[in-house]
Amino acid sequence: MNAPERFLAACARAPVDRTPVWMMRQAGRYLPEYRTVRSRVDFLTLCKSPDLASEVSLQPIERFGMDACVIFSDIMLAVEAMGASVSFGDSGPQIDAPIRSMADVERLRVPDPEAALPYALEALRRTREELHDRAALVGFVGGPFTLASYFVEGGGSRTFAAIKTMLYAQSAVAHALLAKLADFAARYAAAQAHAGAQAVQLFDTWAGELSPAAYEEFALPYQAAIVRSIRSAGVPAILFVNGCAGKLDLIAKCGADVVSVDWRVDLREARARLGAGVAVQGNVDPCVLLTTPDAVTTAARAAMESAGPTGHILNLGHGVLPPTPIECARAFVDAPKTAVVR
Amino acid sequence: MNAPERFLAACARAPVDRTPVWMMRQAGRYLPEYRTVRSRVDFLTLCKSPDLASEVSLQPIERFGMDACVIFSDIMLAVEAMGASVSFGDSGPQIDAPIRSMADVERLRVPDPEAALPYALEALRRTREELHDRAALVGFVGGPFTLASYFVEGGGSRTFAAIKTMLYAQSAVAHALLAKLADFAARYAAAQAHAGAQAVQLFDTWAGELSPAAYEEFALPYQAAIVRSIRSAGVPAILFVNGCAGKLDLIAKCGADVVSVDWRVDLREARARLGAGVAVQGNVDPCVLLTTPDAVTTAARAAMESAGPTGHILNLGHGVLPPTPIECARAFVDAPKTAVVR
Repeated sequence: MNAPERFLAACARAPVDRTPVWMMRQAGRYLPEYRTVRSRVDFLTLCKSPDLASEVSLQPIERFGMDACVIFSDIMLAVEAMGASVSFGDSGPQIDAPIRSMADVERLRVPDPEAALPYALEALRRTREELHDRAALVGFVGGPFTLASYFVEGGGSRTFAAIKTMLYAQSAVAHALLAKLADFAARYAAAQAHAGAQAVQLFDTWAGELSPAAYEEFALPYQAAIVRSIRSAGVPAILFVNGCAGKLDLIAKCGADVVSVDWRVDLREARARLGAGVAVQGNVDPCVLLTTPDAVTTAARAAMESAGPTGHILNLGHGVLPPTPIECARAFVDAPKTAVVR
Repeated sequence: MNAPERFLAACARAPVDRTPVWMMRQAGRYLPEYRTVRSRVDFLTLCKSPDLASEVSLQPIERFGMDACVIFSDIMLAVEAMGASVSFGDSGPQIDAPIRSMADVERLRVPDPEAALPYALEALRRTREELHDRAALVGFVGGPFTLASYFVEGGGSRTFAAIKTMLYAQSAVAHALLAKLADFAARYAAAQAHAGAQAVQLFDTWAGELSPAAYEEFALPYQAAIVRSIRSAGVPAILFVNGCAGKLDLIAKCGADVVSVDWRVDLREARARLGAGVAVQGNVDPCVLLTTPDAVTTAARAAMESAGPTGHILNLGHGVLPPTPIECARAFVDAPKTAVVR
């Protein structure tokens, strides 16, 4: 099997010659070659230059040989394309005028993705061409609740008090915002598939902070709409919700081919609760990759053991941390190539 | 039933006339009468003055009539008593010299709680005397992993990279630190029971950030030792782990009478997975209390409905947020007094 065949077989819960592997945020600051590029251009310029975005997307494939190549981009670019003014500082993205009312929601655009994000789609096309089946190309979009939380909080948050207050006290505004975000994300995800993405991951990272009842009302239906759009475009949909353990029964209903699981729950339990119709991705704690290659190998093998050999894509439970040593990233990517998994 | 009888019956999964209720961090900044006291003294002075600590502990009981009165204190006082230099700033507690080695661990003291924290135990005695059975008095200690994370990170953390690196790469140092923290917490918890606490809650808030395997090795045995000490002192033990959903099967093994559940999992599911031998506490999202009394009543009733009438203590899924309006806190405390729960 070549890498895209292996990756897509795992997404479809079909037999594989070995577990495929990649790492969320694998194109990033832990790589010296990435830092070299970033020393010349700022983050937004990098995202908006198809040649450079493609170059950094390919860097980890060239160094480590993962089975999937996730495109270098940022979920906030879609927010900007919808009309918000976004800046990227050291403390994460900031939005100038947070959304507070229905009028604010109505001002947001739902543009044609090709017109609004041409550089991102061009980066996918160039990367797919460069890959030559060395790895499956993975696109991504931000989940509606996660994007809404940035829109309403104005940036990152620990408690999500502003967005949750909107959910509970202005639910019509919240639903209008979520519907608009889901509408654009669904179009953008389909456009990514048409531009060459062989799978699209929906990052609804912060939806894990909701109660199950709030998740069912404010996250699940919008995730499901995006998943339908991805699958209609002919590629598998992967859903990531950080802190998913209390909502696996609901997450199973969103229709995704693959659920990307964080490290706070065992893959065996996650798989049992998601049911046989869903593949799993994950779920090594990114902090393990701050330690030693041996510890990484042990943790990666434990994840493969918990998940079993079919319908599992080895990954981290969240993105690679910037201080991750190269030799630990290598041990992670090598683990399924050297392990014998029952 | 009076309030202590009601609260203790719920801890023992015995029948109650109605669901008992309190709120984590109910003595705090959302109360104007608390802010009045704090305008005169700083946080540490307040913690270390038995009269004032007792006064603010009683404030929410006098205003709202909860069934339990949690003592006003801070888990970091134990850290200071063990020899660390702690400061309390706006961004949370900071420790001057984070622990990095076995020598650092060996320098920590395990003092006699009466000698090291006399003010905290005296505050319990005075509060118990003042309560006259208006509410059950609840003491608390910090969990070993949570305290270790402050000790090793030097303060709060988003990723817990330093403490987790110690777990994975210096596990002997981590175990020595955790054992010492558990030893002191076990003694301190028993001393609280002897000073009048009618239950002791173990706040191992950050242990939910561990993988299940790491939780089983680095959190569970130390929690279990503290739980045994609390129960040997003749009072029920309550365990709180924030983000518990992926570890309920393990948490059930720690021997606590009550597990305090965060809002990211439904109480019905939590109860099913914890088993019949454990009472549950929780689990309304504290953000709901930022909205309207009606929304609070709805959420509180939903939690009571999910948990059922026996072996449930209504509470939040985490501490009260400082911007919580008084009328929302009142709606929460009143919910079990007015609801008819099957």
